[in-house]
Amino acid sequence: MNKNPAIPAGDLDHLSIAVPDLKAAAEFYRDTFGCEVSDPIDLPERNMRIVYVTLANTKIELMEPTDSSSTLAKFIERNPDGGLHHICLTTPDVDIAAEQATAEKLRVIGKGTSHHGRALFFLHPKDALGTLIEIEEEN
Amino acid sequence: MNKNPAIPAGDLDHLSIAVPDLKAAAEFYRDTFGCEVSDPIDLPERNMRIVYVTLANTKIELMEPTDSSSTLAKFIERNPDGGLHHICLTTPDVDIAAEQATAEKLRVIGKGTSHHGRALFFLHPKDALGTLIEIEEEN
Repeated sequence: MNKNPAIPAGDLDHLSIAVPDLKAAAEFYRDTFGCEVSDPIDLPERNMRIVYVTLANTKIELMEPTDSSSTLAKFIERNPDGGLHHICLTTPDVDIAAEQATAEKLRVIGKGTSHHGRALFFLHPKDALGTLIEIEEEN
Repeated sequence: MNKNPAIPAGDLDHLSIAVPDLKAAAEFYRDTFGCEVSDPIDLPERNMRIVYVTLANTKIELMEPTDSSSTLAKFIERNPDGGLHHICLTTPDVDIAAEQATAEKLRVIGKGTSHHGRALFFLHPKDALGTLIEIEEEN
């Protein structure tokens, strides 16, 4: 175990699945798995609408694009049934993590704040084994 | 919340990421995120080699194909950097869940046993919003 990792990771805060039809997806998770599913949350600044599915140890974010030109809409064009989109890990301090990641030549993209007000960024998938990884500050 | 779901889900047991180079992937998760990473586990009957990455609340399975004709090898051909492959949810009784899923016209594929000896199956991604979902019996 590395004692000084660039982005010390804690929890899997959530994993995100892009879906073409949020209502159908929410019903699928509620009816098939018996999961609690949140009401839809509109995120117009991100051109999407989401729900959270509660699992015992983490949550799933289901995301539906609301704008045909967004990156998420293009993902759905390539994956019309939907598909796994990204994972989100927590870290104690997002600013320090972003600085240390940059120092290690990892591309930090989309630095901002979540709709819960938590600082976040993404690692470029080309620098993270093909996986889009969101890094969000711990609660 | 559905009181009688076909596949009552508990935890996210793990999420799985396909990678072209298991050693490099294990180092990335250890060095960048400071995660504990298991020794490699060879699964010749599944034509793959895996490691587990420990997060505070769940784990990530990194999978490298060991046979060029396997489904996983073809996934890597389509995603040469690697990518998110499947998620695994736990349920109290896999046999009952498989029966109830089939009764609801969900295609149950790959029924078997994990290398830990836990019963499992997969839901066909076409029946699960484009996501390959593994269902594994709770410990």
